[in-house]
Amino acid sequence: MAQKTMNDLLLMTMQDVYYAERQILKALPKLAKASNSEELKNALMHHREETQGQVERLQKAFDALGKRARGQTCEAINGLIEEGDEIVEEVQEGPVRDAGILACAQAVEHYEMARYGTIIAWAKAVGANDVVTLMQETLEEEKNADTTLNKLATRSINAQAVRQAA
Amino acid sequence: MAQKTMNDLLLMTMQDVYYAERQILKALPKLAKASNSEELKNALMHHREETQGQVERLQKAFDALGKRARGQTCEAINGLIEEGDEIVEEVQEGPVRDAGILACAQAVEHYEMARYGTIIAWAKAVGANDVVTLMQETLEEEKNADTTLNKLATRSINAQAVRQAA
Repeated sequence: MAQKTMNDLLLMTMQDVYYAERQILKALPKLAKASNSEELKNALMHHREETQGQVERLQKAFDALGKRARGQTCEAINGLIEEGDEIVEEVQEGPVRDAGILACAQAVEHYEMARYGTIIAWAKAVGANDVVTLMQETLEEEKNADTTLNKLATRSINAQAVRQAA
Repeated sequence: MAQKTMNDLLLMTMQDVYYAERQILKALPKLAKASNSEELKNALMHHREETQGQVERLQKAFDALGKRARGQTCEAINGLIEEGDEIVEEVQEGPVRDAGILACAQAVEHYEMARYGTIIAWAKAVGANDVVTLMQETLEEEKNADTTLNKLATRSINAQAVRQAA
C-alpha cells in the first residue's frame, strides 16, 4: 500500500465525518418524531438545521484542500444511530423513551466533538488554516448542542421519566 | 412490550457499557502493538489497566442495584473499534498511523464520557447513590485518559506525523 501522509489521514477523517453528518441529517427527524416532549423535538430539529450548515462547512473545507467532498462509510456513526433505533424499538413513547433518545443524541454529539477536535488538531499540524477556522465553528456548535441537551435532561426530561415509572 | 422504566433504561445502558469496556480491554493491546511510539504504547496499556478497574466498578454498580453483571452488544463501540482496525489496515506502522490510532482512542473515550455522564444523571434521578459515586470515579478516569492522549497528540505525535510526510 502507498505510504499515507498526515494530509491523507486528515482527508480520510473528513470523509468519515462527512458521511456521519449526512446520516445524522436523516436520523434526527426520525428521533424527533419518536419523541414525546415538545422541547426535545425542537432541540433535535434545531440541531438538524445546524447539521445542514455543518455539511456545507465540510464542503468548504474539502474545497480549501482542493478535494471533492465525498463521504466514506463510518461504522461508528452507524452503530451510534442504531442505538437510537433500539431505544425507539424497545421503549414505548413517553418520557422514558425521551430520556433514552436524548442520551443517544448526546453520544452522537460526543463522537462528533472527538472527531472535529482531531480534524482541527491535524489541520493545524499541516497548516490548513481555512479548515481549522471552519471546523472550529462546527465544534462550538456541537458543544452547544450537547450543553442544550444536558440542560434539558437534568432540568425536565429525567425527572419526568422517573415520574412515569412511579 | 412491557412498559420500560427509568431503572430499566439505566440497567440497559450499564449493560451496554459493560460490553463496551470488555471490548475495549481486548482492543487496547492490539492498538498498542500496532503503535510505533513508546509513549503511545504506554498510554494505551496504562488505560487498559484502568479499564480493568472500570469493569470491576461496573460489577459493583450492578451489585448495588441487586442485578447480575452482564453485557449487551453495543453497536457503537463495535463501530468505534472497527475504525481503529481500519487505521491499522490502511496506514503503515509509523507516526501517521500513531496519530490515527490515538484519534480513534480519543473517540472511544468521548463515547464513554457521554455514556458515563448519562448513567450518572439517571442514577441520580432514580436515587441510586452508590452507582453515582462509582461511575463518577470512572468518568474522571476517562476524562484524564482523554487529556493525556490530547497532550501526547499536540506535543509530539502530530508533529512527528507531519515530519514523516515531508
